[in-house]
Amino acid sequence: MIAPIPDLLIQPVVSAALAEDLGRAGDVTAQACIEAHARLSAVFAARQNGIVAGLACARLSVMALDPSATFEAMVADGDEVQPGDVLAKVEANARALLSAERTALNLLGRLSGVATLTRDYVQAVAGAGAGARIADTRKTTPGLRHLEKYAVRCGGGLNHRFGLDDAILIKDNHVAACGGVGEALTRARAAAGHLMKIEVEVDSLSQLEEALPHRPDVIMLDNFSLDDLRKAVAMTGGAVILEASGGVNLQTVRGIAETGVQVISVGALTHSASVLDIGLDAV
Amino acid sequence: MIAPIPDLLIQPVVSAALAEDLGRAGDVTAQACIEAHARLSAVFAARQNGIVAGLACARLSVMALDPSATFEAMVADGDEVQPGDVLAKVEANARALLSAERTALNLLGRLSGVATLTRDYVQAVAGAGAGARIADTRKTTPGLRHLEKYAVRCGGGLNHRFGLDDAILIKDNHVAACGGVGEALTRARAAAGHLMKIEVEVDSLSQLEEALPHRPDVIMLDNFSLDDLRKAVAMTGGAVILEASGGVNLQTVRGIAETGVQVISVGALTHSASVLDIGLDAV
Amino acid sequence: MIAPIPDLLIQPVVSAALAEDLGRAGDVTAQACIEAHARLSAVFAARQNGIVAGLACARLSVMALDPSATFEAMVADGDEVQPGDVLAKVEANARALLSAERTALNLLGRLSGVATLTRDYVQAVAGAGAGARIADTRKTTPGLRHLEKYAVRCGGGLNHRFGLDDAILIKDNHVAACGGVGEALTRARAAAGHLMKIEVEVDSLSQLEEALPHRPDVIMLDNFSLDDLRKAVAMTGGAVILEASGGVNLQTVRGIAETGVQVISVGALTHSASVLDIGLDAV
Amino acid sequence: MIAPIPDLLIQPVVSAALAEDLGRAGDVTAQACIEAHARLSAVFAARQNGIVAGLACARLSVMALDPSATFEAMVADGDEVQPGDVLAKVEANARALLSAERTALNLLGRLSGVATLTRDYVQAVAGAGAGARIADTRKTTPGLRHLEKYAVRCGGGLNHRFGLDDAILIKDNHVAACGGVGEALTRARAAAGHLMKIEVEVDSLSQLEEALPHRPDVIMLDNFSLDDLRKAVAMTGGAVILEASGGVNLQTVRGIAETGVQVISVGALTHSASVLDIGLDAV
Amino acid sequence: MIAPIPDLLIQPVVSAALAEDLGRAGDVTAQACIEAHARLSAVFAARQNGIVAGLACARLSVMALDPSATFEAMVADGDEVQPGDVLAKVEANARALLSAERTALNLLGRLSGVATLTRDYVQAVAGAGAGARIADTRKTTPGLRHLEKYAVRCGGGLNHRFGLDDAILIKDNHVAACGGVGEALTRARAAAGHLMKIEVEVDSLSQLEEALPHRPDVIMLDNFSLDDLRKAVAMTGGAVILEASGGVNLQTVRGIAETGVQVISVGALTHSASVLDIGLDAV
Amino acid sequence: MIAPIPDLLIQPVVSAALAEDLGRAGDVTAQACIEAHARLSAVFAARQNGIVAGLACARLSVMALDPSATFEAMVADGDEVQPGDVLAKVEANARALLSAERTALNLLGRLSGVATLTRDYVQAVAGAGAGARIADTRKTTPGLRHLEKYAVRCGGGLNHRFGLDDAILIKDNHVAACGGVGEALTRARAAAGHLMKIEVEVDSLSQLEEALPHRPDVIMLDNFSLDDLRKAVAMTGGAVILEASGGVNLQTVRGIAETGVQVISVGALTHSASVLDIGLDAV
Repeated sequence: MIAPIPDLLIQPVVSAALAEDLGRAGDVTAQACIEAHARLSAVFAARQNGIVAGLACARLSVMALDPSATFEAMVADGDEVQPGDVLAKVEANARALLSAERTALNLLGRLSGVATLTRDYVQAVAGAGAGARIADTRKTTPGLRHLEKYAVRCGGGLNHRFGLDDAILIKDNHVAACGGVGEALTRARAAAGHLMKIEVEVDSLSQLEEALPHRPDVIMLDNFSLDDLRKAVAMTGGAVILEASGGVNLQTVRGIAETGVQVISVGALTHSASVLDIGLDAV
Repeated sequence: MIAPIPDLLIQPVVSAALAEDLGRAGDVTAQACIEAHARLSAVFAARQNGIVAGLACARLSVMALDPSATFEAMVADGDEVQPGDVLAKVEANARALLSAERTALNLLGRLSGVATLTRDYVQAVAGAGAGARIADTRKTTPGLRHLEKYAVRCGGGLNHRFGLDDAILIKDNHVAACGGVGEALTRARAAAGHLMKIEVEVDSLSQLEEALPHRPDVIMLDNFSLDDLRKAVAMTGGAVILEASGGVNLQTVRGIAETGVQVISVGALTHSASVLDIGLDAV
Repeated sequence: MIAPIPDLLIQPVVSAALAEDLGRAGDVTAQACIEAHARLSAVFAARQNGIVAGLACARLSVMALDPSATFEAMVADGDEVQPGDVLAKVEANARALLSAERTALNLLGRLSGVATLTRDYVQAVAGAGAGARIADTRKTTPGLRHLEKYAVRCGGGLNHRFGLDDAILIKDNHVAACGGVGEALTRARAAAGHLMKIEVEVDSLSQLEEALPHRPDVIMLDNFSLDDLRKAVAMTGGAVILEASGGVNLQTVRGIAETGVQVISVGALTHSASVLDIGLDAV
Repeated sequence: MIAPIPDLLIQPVVSAALAEDLGRAGDVTAQACIEAHARLSAVFAARQNGIVAGLACARLSVMALDPSATFEAMVADGDEVQPGDVLAKVEANARALLSAERTALNLLGRLSGVATLTRDYVQAVAGAGAGARIADTRKTTPGLRHLEKYAVRCGGGLNHRFGLDDAILIKDNHVAACGGVGEALTRARAAAGHLMKIEVEVDSLSQLEEALPHRPDVIMLDNFSLDDLRKAVAMTGGAVILEASGGVNLQTVRGIAETGVQVISVGALTHSASVLDIGLDAV
Repeated sequence: MIAPIPDLLIQPVVSAALAEDLGRAGDVTAQACIEAHARLSAVFAARQNGIVAGLACARLSVMALDPSATFEAMVADGDEVQPGDVLAKVEANARALLSAERTALNLLGRLSGVATLTRDYVQAVAGAGAGARIADTRKTTPGLRHLEKYAVRCGGGLNHRFGLDDAILIKDNHVAACGGVGEALTRARAAAGHLMKIEVEVDSLSQLEEALPHRPDVIMLDNFSLDDLRKAVAMTGGAVILEASGGVNLQTVRGIAETGVQVISVGALTHSASVLDIGLDAV
Repeated sequence: MIAPIPDLLIQPVVSAALAEDLGRAGDVTAQACIEAHARLSAVFAARQNGIVAGLACARLSVMALDPSATFEAMVADGDEVQPGDVLAKVEANARALLSAERTALNLLGRLSGVATLTRDYVQAVAGAGAGARIADTRKTTPGLRHLEKYAVRCGGGLNHRFGLDDAILIKDNHVAACGGVGEALTRARAAAGHLMKIEVEVDSLSQLEEALPHRPDVIMLDNFSLDDLRKAVAMTGGAVILEASGGVNLQTVRGIAETGVQVISVGALTHSASVLDIGLDAV
């Protein structure tokens, strides 16, 4: 089971999203057309195959507008659903439910879309090479990073850094500023606490060679050819985690995995996932 | 020229995105590897063809971390760029610029992606039918709606409602609660102020007929066949704005436009756009 | 019944108001003089004739300091009350209730004051002319616009724009910048989405004539004489909504309504309403 | 000269007010009708006689939307103005200035209205009795208390408590809970720090007598007849500050002042002031 | 019993502290190692002698992550505890409780540390002189002032000003700017409302003499020798509250109290208190 | 040089601290006693030996109230100062500077206190054993963690986890829930991303033995005797980082370091540091 993140970390996102949608006057259509005390039963139902992520967002959206609502999840985040599958049953004040609908679906659909695309990548590499893991990046939606990274976990993916502060990742500009991979790693080692990992990005086998004696925790092989990826794997023999990055898509990812790298990071998981089509159907 | 939205409405998004990325310790890599007072010149450059949107986000991201930075835009939001085109030149404290890079690119890339996809739809319907406009929906990213709707304008699209409060849009659940399209429109008319428009969603020609005498400002034809769209256009003769919705994609949109509807709303503009690939290159 | 606005849109106002009043040390008098666990029953009672608006504000104020409190409304927002009428019964921790009292009354009294003044204007025009509606303006208290506009609805009034973004309203400075009413309306039409209405302010019959062919949704007749208002009504014959504005007070409003305009907008509803005198009486 | 309050305490109010008015799309009219880089010169001008308060609010409103704007105050807060008097000259980006106009005027007009009404009360008691001061109450607009109390100072008034925490004020419910004025004052004395004053509200001469031996700093005479006010003044002989409260209006206030009380508190200063009519005129 | 401060004033501190600790990914250890629905019973237990303050902080920390938790306080704020004493029993979701543990202890330990140090000072002066009270200062932790001042009350101390706005305190720089103690007091008297006290800091007996005719409410004797303190007490004869300040520690405080001053203010209470050692023990 | 953290991460702390101190009315003393446009030059000067940390907090405090102020740092964070040393020169509006003084000193003094205490620990272990580093904990002041951890770096210390989310730290309750150290480490390994380190706390040599085959990145030896610490060092031979924790103070720390552990974590650095005495002196 995917470990959920605390409601406390989701509530600010939901509140802001509802406030953005309600604006200053609230849902004028529901106010005009629906009786104040009418109740509505409905289900969140999948219209596409995919992986669910974000049920708590839907629950909190409805609860924020009607604390007396009931929300019963029929599946769990991380589960696969087929068209027609019911994700959750909800009973609530009718105005509240209709007002919360779009916010709930925007979050649930977006996160499920991320989870589903992650699942596609994970399946594409299943059984290939050394069992490469699919990892996300920091190319996330501003304000939703923690939720999108959770969705990646729901899809079976691995989380890369959550921010600029929880690991050191030396990239080309840092190397240039330091005058070389070695000096950059030396400075990083001196600055890093004992609970902070160090990764370095290299763009050639010779840079890889320069990095190895400094024993970084992870080496990112940026835009390497398959051939060079294989050479890198052979050179390092498992002594360091190798992460392939750049030019990864659903067509190329299996070939990359077969080179033996342990991690493949894919920006598209979060920056270019389509929403998973989920609807709210009155029952 | 696309009218920009005030920085005041962008700054909270940028600040939150930077705070999310900087976390508690800030950019530990830049702190370790870059001299405190080093400066860096760089350009934001396109790596794909597309429409630019969100230059102000990039500018404000850099300025937030280095108020002394200079940011010179070489194109304007709404302009088309080709791979290699420089969008903006920036000169700033090196640590600040590298720390702001991902936030700047996440926003600029996402909004340009929306603008580009909108442009694709707009081009697909160019010259067809009565000059149908491509409109967005409320299927936007929580917290970014105003920016994504701005990006739609940059791509040549039309904005639908910004929230639940700025127009009445009667959908199936409202009709069901009222017992019919007519009663729903009657209630809406009684509730609406004189500066609020009323739109009603219908799913059949008979519902359309029921709606017409109530003179809504806009009628949304939901999931109509091309044939029924044509009939609807014929029935109404321009007396009301007709908006087609549902099942719209780049393959189907031109056929829909040719039926003569005035507006085609497309959720995908905001819920499924891929990021436009833009990079920051040191110079 | 007046459709209530969601608690979610009221709670931030109530929390901020309580925080402002409690300051850093809280209610030092209640802390000194009242037992920690004492309970208090009390009623919110009218001391003046008027229209009630904002009961939810009073309820949320008390509940914020004592979630175990009970609050029973005896009337509904929009109801008329006489001196001595009980608006609501409340039972709560005594310290909490006394600490919340001023915040509850400040909001309830202010909104009821707006509703009451609106009612006075609405009654003043009852049966006159074409049934003119009394509308508010954007001359509202910063931070309370959505609540004050709700109070206007409670008093039987009509809401004008909620902000700068939900309709186009072309005023003298815009006309001047465009070089004329016609050009301003042309630009507005090009910029407006299909769900956004367009209003233009004119200050003479000739400007009215210039505006008409551009078919704005609403024309505001600014500071017109009664005679010119009548001429405007005659000229337009109901083809466009006419809104009278400027120099409106309780003495002049009926005469304006009798000219046949459909809407009369009154800044005083929100910028100069007196509080309705309501008290909290222990029972 | 009235000591200004720091911009830091005003900026959150201005930002929230602008955000409330700009909504999600910003000023659609200015965007449609005004050139992006056009400049506008204008003056804030009085249309009524009154006392100015809140120039900083106007300045910060304009600056928030155009940091390059210039704002030159021609009068100071606390000054009296006549119809036509220029309060300030402003030059700014035209869109920014027109977008900020309503927010600037809402704050400036409201605060000047409070200052003006305070001035009226202050003038009404000038030279009467022992030189009674006119004081405000906590019946202020939620969120604007510090600004409205500043406006009271601009009008020549005295500030009562800013909140529940900066002085002890024992009222009827506290007395009832304690079983008497004496016990209430005893508890208050035990709880109060050495920098906190104690005031007690009495509703009869006998309660006044009961209070005196406890030496409160201030005694509020609630709804006393003029005769009883005079007796209270005689009984206390200046040993304690006497504050009259209840039933105070511009007709009764001078008579109250003539009884010799030192302070007269007036809820109307903030809860029922009309806005002062101020306009923004392009030049 | 110490009067508690409303949860409403504590909740923002607790929420911010939890958010700071949970970061973007939440408690990854609990997520990895603890079953999602496991429950845990535990006690907050003292490991040191001291005075308890802040039980509400611990309760709200746990409740924020598990609203279904139960929290039973076994002692009250202000009570003295010995090593091993149970302060509260808690039963909650195991992940939630372990995630909240550090936040709960950080607040509870810090406030209890302040209360304990205050108690030490209070005991040190017990029975000395005229019964001097121990007062805090504004040398508090940013963001926690209201909680730390509450902790001082729990320890038997007296609160000095809560901020720059609730009393006037004239210090050396103000005196210098005014050209003398007398002029400073004259200006202060003119500016102060009738519910605001005035204190002046003097650094010599001659300044004290200069201050006395202006009848400030409190005079702070800054860094006076014991001899001068005694002279000041003799000079004033109880007509004004004398507050000793500067160079106060647990060794010197009793001697200061014996001079007869009524108040001794001690910055160390809040700026240099050690945390009280409290632990959470599973049961 | 200590890498500074971005102003963006400090500004919210400074703004909240100033708002807390200014309250609703601002600095009433400065308003009463100081001319509105008077300027003041002053220096921040040390009154004790110690290590400076937090100069940016002082600078931002002054700048927030007077953007035209100048602030010239004479030393850098991390520098050692002696009594009388000038840390910074400041010139500003006199009211603004005096109003900001306490906030500036509260932050600067507190952070310098943390840095100074860290320095004391670092000096105490200098040259002992294998060069043990002194590390902080999560026992920080709510809301100030990032600043206090920065101060630890200024004092020469090492940062442990910044929050619950940036490394896994398995403690006794986690071990109990998993049924053993081994199972806990197995679960942790499965959950951790490739950029997240894993630490486990053990309380005996046998638990240490159980942990070793699972190859955690760091092992915390909780409350080990010096003898057991030596045995642990011998057993592990440098293959894993050993961190001693519990019962560490300035008397015991050198002995602990001499056992050969690499890291010693000390809660007191942040939970029990005294403020460094720094003053603002007018010049």
